[in-house]
Amino acid sequence: MLTEGRLDLFTAKTAVSVIRYCKEEVIALIDSVNAGKDPESIIGIGKGIPIVHTIEDILHLKPNALLIGIAPPGGMLPAEWRKHIADALRNGLHIISGLHCHLNEDREFHQLATEHHVKIWDIRKPSEDIPLGSGKAKNTKTLRILTVGSDCNIGKMVTSLEITNAARNRGINARFVATGQTGIMIDGSGIAVDHVISDFISGAAEKLVLDRAQYPLLSIEGQGTIVHPAYSGVTLGLLHGSAPQGLILCHQPARKTLRHFNDFSILPLSYLIDLYEKLAQPVFPCRVLGISLNCFGMADRDALQEIQKIERETKLPATDPIKFGVGKFMDSVLSLLP
Amino acid sequence: MLTEGRLDLFTAKTAVSVIRYCKEEVIALIDSVNAGKDPESIIGIGKGIPIVHTIEDILHLKPNALLIGIAPPGGMLPAEWRKHIADALRNGLHIISGLHCHLNEDREFHQLATEHHVKIWDIRKPSEDIPLGSGKAKNTKTLRILTVGSDCNIGKMVTSLEITNAARNRGINARFVATGQTGIMIDGSGIAVDHVISDFISGAAEKLVLDRAQYPLLSIEGQGTIVHPAYSGVTLGLLHGSAPQGLILCHQPARKTLRHFNDFSILPLSYLIDLYEKLAQPVFPCRVLGISLNCFGMADRDALQEIQKIERETKLPATDPIKFGVGKFMDSVLSLLP
Repeated sequence: MLTEGRLDLFTAKTAVSVIRYCKEEVIALIDSVNAGKDPESIIGIGKGIPIVHTIEDILHLKPNALLIGIAPPGGMLPAEWRKHIADALRNGLHIISGLHCHLNEDREFHQLATEHHVKIWDIRKPSEDIPLGSGKAKNTKTLRILTVGSDCNIGKMVTSLEITNAARNRGINARFVATGQTGIMIDGSGIAVDHVISDFISGAAEKLVLDRAQYPLLSIEGQGTIVHPAYSGVTLGLLHGSAPQGLILCHQPARKTLRHFNDFSILPLSYLIDLYEKLAQPVFPCRVLGISLNCFGMADRDALQEIQKIERETKLPATDPIKFGVGKFMDSVLSLLP
Repeated sequence: MLTEGRLDLFTAKTAVSVIRYCKEEVIALIDSVNAGKDPESIIGIGKGIPIVHTIEDILHLKPNALLIGIAPPGGMLPAEWRKHIADALRNGLHIISGLHCHLNEDREFHQLATEHHVKIWDIRKPSEDIPLGSGKAKNTKTLRILTVGSDCNIGKMVTSLEITNAARNRGINARFVATGQTGIMIDGSGIAVDHVISDFISGAAEKLVLDRAQYPLLSIEGQGTIVHPAYSGVTLGLLHGSAPQGLILCHQPARKTLRHFNDFSILPLSYLIDLYEKLAQPVFPCRVLGISLNCFGMADRDALQEIQKIERETKLPATDPIKFGVGKFMDSVLSLLP
């Protein structure tokens, strides 16, 4: 996995999540700045995975693919990564990328991939057959639980994955539904809804539901937040296309302004709950079932205090999925099963 | 203008609007089904514009471009139109198209255009330089008035154009801001926000505002509606990207369900006003200033009664822009000028 110079908890969401949910598949990190360190000392997980300077350093471990482990804002390719990607292709590795720019359309990379008989999987490049939204997701018999948030990059994917796992542990054949590049890397399928033509956002979300309607429970990865200077359209299209019966609202208590947009305050949870429910309910009866708190950086005792405070304020179950699991949500979620 | 077989008030929004706002530029309609009739007898305007079978019938009038006058849902090219487009290209006419499918990427059309030294302008194809939203539109000194609606195809573009004209008549250098294909055809510039990559909807709306920030008043064409199984994402991205201080809510009293989505009811105006204001206000202080009613098909007396009823219900000025003009909105709009 390529993380070149950007291995930290704030920008390496993809790397951290892939290690968390697919650790056995990660044989090394390519990162000349952090080479020699242990990932756990930097990002808190991934103990024992070697960090190396270049792809050549770990060819003896027989890697089969290079995964781009960072999703920078805007999704463009940092210049210093070109060499690593070209090296990987020359050494017969496939490339898995969630960048906005499609590596397959880069002439050098495309030619190298052809010469060395490997593939470049641009995860954000949507398939050609996404239809317009039709409003049909609400007619499926599956239980649709969508995570929403008070901001981007706040724990929606992790919460959806943890709900999937918790439901499976209780014997429900739940399915995670990936809507962003990291989720797709973890699940192996999905649509990056932020990269479809904007008229088709809801259609993409609806297709994800209809194609998986045989599962009794779909735990759908949310995107963005409902009041945002860049991403709110994706958030709302996903809400209406997937027609959820239940929402989990994700929030980070320590965050006061939108990430990368410091002149936008995070809205009060009561304001957000009201907005999300009023937007969802005309499509399908829907309510917020719980608050998923990202207490990253807080001591467990402080996190528990924050959780109790939020529960008193919202009258909803709250938890930090990483610190304490999502058990608290599961009674409400499973009570909606048809 | 090509309207082949689809010249009616329900599907020919583009044709009707281009005739309404650019009549002097329309020399004929190509429509073998309606050939020989007068447009006024079918769509209520366009008296005297000939409707002909084929492009050859009006070559003596020296047309310089064929404009595709219909925007079918999904934006695909009806098979029976290919011959007309190819004929136009062979006779040296440029093509102006707002279809989702890009005619320039059609091998036959592209080749014909090259051979005959004419251009195909795919209006929905966005320029390459649309940035992510940054939240900067709110910092401009221009007054930003956005139309929103209770449904698609309900009068947002017409209302925005009429507000532009009414402000100009009062000596304000107002600028219409086109966000859809018909608006772009009328204005000659703009971005079809429904056809940008969904991460960039707000960025596109913001760019439209920033590029025109020297005008004291921008009358911005809205899109879609805020609860919709297909288009709500575009609506919200446009709202947050353009950061309006005032909204005009467009509604058709006779319409009870969403167009093309009969199992979705049109929401009560009070519900919509609340939603739009709650979504807009965290970005910029914003309120709904008036209700623009599309009373198409109603007698003037019935329309006036409906207008009075809506004014009592909402405590806001209401009018039908086509029947009675937008004078009623202008005091509220102009009172917000900096």
